[in-house]
Amino acid sequence: MHGLLVVDHGSRREEANAQLADIASRLRRLRPTDAVEHAHMELGEPTIVQAFARLVAAGATTVSVLPYFLSGGRHSSEDIPRLVAEAVAAHPGVAFTVAPALGPHDALARLLLERAGLA
Amino acid sequence: MHGLLVVDHGSRREEANAQLADIASRLRRLRPTDAVEHAHMELGEPTIVQAFARLVAAGATTVSVLPYFLSGGRHSSEDIPRLVAEAVAAHPGVAFTVAPALGPHDALARLLLERAGLA
Repeated sequence: MHGLLVVDHGSRREEANAQLADIASRLRRLRPTDAVEHAHMELGEPTIVQAFARLVAAGATTVSVLPYFLSGGRHSSEDIPRLVAEAVAAHPGVAFTVAPALGPHDALARLLLERAGLA
Repeated sequence: MHGLLVVDHGSRREEANAQLADIASRLRRLRPTDAVEHAHMELGEPTIVQAFARLVAAGATTVSVLPYFLSGGRHSSEDIPRLVAEAVAAHPGVAFTVAPALGPHDALARLLLERAGLA
């Protein structure tokens, strides 16, 4: 089974953390045969270690890590790969890749216009 | 003429700020008859005041402010509206609206999958 792990920075605001759970629900709907979990890099649970363990328990042997960040930078290119590598060390035989950040992309420009009622 | 002002938080990393200029270019392509500018809330130029003045100089009499933030919160619901209201005070007769933040939205879930090579 393939697993998806969507990861944001994490916030002290419960509302912001809840939005990541909402995105995970959307991913489950779009990819019904994958295992999907969400995790916060810091400041909230589930942590990457917790979410990764859940994916493996669900039967995932390959995992796509999806950084939920608008722009690339240290978090998506260094911190998340390091934290995921630490989490995967407890699960030998599980392979993972880390995707690039979301932006920039026309889909984001189009969504900006939609949010403004212009699309 | 209608104006679009896309606003992010602003970063000390030039690379992150450059991504907002990239999004502004995409908006110009998608809305060729609108005036489009980008601004950083803080930590970089153009500021909201500078970008707003450019839109008005280009002929904009109505402006859609587009917060480039994944989730809503104080920045998009309070800080940006206040900063834009301060900027517009110098330009009587110009009307503006502030759109909500980008997420959560299926377009973001689909873009996560695309970035991971799964869509």
